[in-house]
Amino acid sequence: MSIRAGIAGYGNLGRGAELALAAAPDLTLCAVFTRRGGLTVATPGVPVVALEYAEEWKDKLDVMLLCGGSAKDLPEQGPKLAAMFNTADTYDTHAAIPDYLSAMNKAAQNTASVISAGWDPGLFSMMRLLSGAVLPGGVCGTFWGPGVSQGHSDAVRRIPGVKDAVQYTIPVESAVSAAREGIGSDRRHTRECFVVAEEGSGREEITRAIKTMPHYFAGYDTTVNFITQDELLKDHAALPHGGCVIRTGNAGTMEFSLKLQSNPEFTASVLVACAKAAVRLAREGNCGAKTVFDIPLTYLSPVGRDTLIKELL
Amino acid sequence: MSIRAGIAGYGNLGRGAELALAAAPDLTLCAVFTRRGGLTVATPGVPVVALEYAEEWKDKLDVMLLCGGSAKDLPEQGPKLAAMFNTADTYDTHAAIPDYLSAMNKAAQNTASVISAGWDPGLFSMMRLLSGAVLPGGVCGTFWGPGVSQGHSDAVRRIPGVKDAVQYTIPVESAVSAAREGIGSDRRHTRECFVVAEEGSGREEITRAIKTMPHYFAGYDTTVNFITQDELLKDHAALPHGGCVIRTGNAGTMEFSLKLQSNPEFTASVLVACAKAAVRLAREGNCGAKTVFDIPLTYLSPVGRDTLIKELL
Repeated sequence: MSIRAGIAGYGNLGRGAELALAAAPDLTLCAVFTRRGGLTVATPGVPVVALEYAEEWKDKLDVMLLCGGSAKDLPEQGPKLAAMFNTADTYDTHAAIPDYLSAMNKAAQNTASVISAGWDPGLFSMMRLLSGAVLPGGVCGTFWGPGVSQGHSDAVRRIPGVKDAVQYTIPVESAVSAAREGIGSDRRHTRECFVVAEEGSGREEITRAIKTMPHYFAGYDTTVNFITQDELLKDHAALPHGGCVIRTGNAGTMEFSLKLQSNPEFTASVLVACAKAAVRLAREGNCGAKTVFDIPLTYLSPVGRDTLIKELL
Repeated sequence: MSIRAGIAGYGNLGRGAELALAAAPDLTLCAVFTRRGGLTVATPGVPVVALEYAEEWKDKLDVMLLCGGSAKDLPEQGPKLAAMFNTADTYDTHAAIPDYLSAMNKAAQNTASVISAGWDPGLFSMMRLLSGAVLPGGVCGTFWGPGVSQGHSDAVRRIPGVKDAVQYTIPVESAVSAAREGIGSDRRHTRECFVVAEEGSGREEITRAIKTMPHYFAGYDTTVNFITQDELLKDHAALPHGGCVIRTGNAGTMEFSLKLQSNPEFTASVLVACAKAAVRLAREGNCGAKTVFDIPLTYLSPVGRDTLIKELL
């Protein structure tokens, strides 16, 4: 029987999850939960439910895909929904993951929740672990981009005088090459911003505000380009991303790279695979909060173990 | 306490395992088992034991690394040793894996055995499964090389008139590019042989015998170069290898690539990580034969789960 899935949160990631569910042979989208009124979703016939009524769907769903943001939505919604549903999410505030895991683990008493299941954290984390286990003496580097960083784009948009903005994170080629030789680098990324300034605002001030912004831009080689709103919409509306994890040791180099047409859709594809694992873990009585480190790969696939071994091993 | 490991078989892979164990922080090589007399091993103080006396080491080892060949050694030695020890091996006769798994599973009543744990089968298998789970609608391609194929080199050496030979498998660049675009290709590899002919043997005959050899060369674009024994030793003694698994779907491309300085040492590094998992599975009472598809990634690492989550997720 198909796994009955809900989506909580219908922003970029939620819409990506809708596409990923449509592509998954063994899951069906049953409802979308949101705090916004008047929403209609792309898939015909799928009901839109106010998030506060989620509990009424407790027995009608096998898993809830948590598609809210990590800053404000997931810390609050995550534990509440994990108490009612098996869940999967893409919680990505790296430093706060242990606390979030702990809160989700407390909530998921009779359910299973897979947290931080996107591409980073997620697939890249798996590759960091796997490559470190195989090449214990090596050096590991993670590179992001070229691609749009939503967090950095938001940070630029919050600067007074900025009307709209997109920020690209770009890996430094020489640092990528060095990683393949087993050499670490301090400067691994540059940042490039495309900014639409409000009329009458000072470009120099905006540029200074960006380049000196602590945590986000200070210490990086940052380029700021001013463009029109039309140019932004025409040339910078897609959300491509990608990156790689490289580890080199004595015996060789392992490299895992991603090139994403659409960051939200790909992230959601990982989320959907892990949602499947959450359902299976719960059915086996293995409740609580889990990570991609805890799940055998067979749990991510719709295909049975014997067939996987025969065809893919 | 360090995991006490034995090595059964001291060819290229066994010597690679010795290096991989020396690099692993949590395993210690305790003995090497072999059918050959008069062997000494590189690590000082490590005893060399005749394979027939392995049973005497039943309580002195936590895991045995099976480093024999897949064609003749493992089908016979594997089940015998799995009845006595937790084991890990690199069994790589793809078509016969289900039978081997079944035989090992029957033997491993009170032990755990991880089979086919190299890079292919092994890491590449994991990537085929993972990429298929994330991008169910995509197209997957596996490419091997550029690198020395031991099986193909052996096949050439068995041809009458051939004194020595090395065979390189080389991926077709246009097929790799096509895979990144989500397009499959029939001709994905070419083969290049470096052959030392015995004096008086016919080069044309040897070339024909190679190019028409069923399963190994027939149907491939194969180049045959004749060189001297000195050239072979000077230019073709290393065992580099590598390759990649590429899967492209609507949301993006996942690519995992390996570049190996030494194929046996890298293969053994995967083997050692999986040996660790075998010990842990057995301690948890999860006995029987397992594959890389069945093991949570945490089991491969010497680092504890909390630290892995904090530092690598």
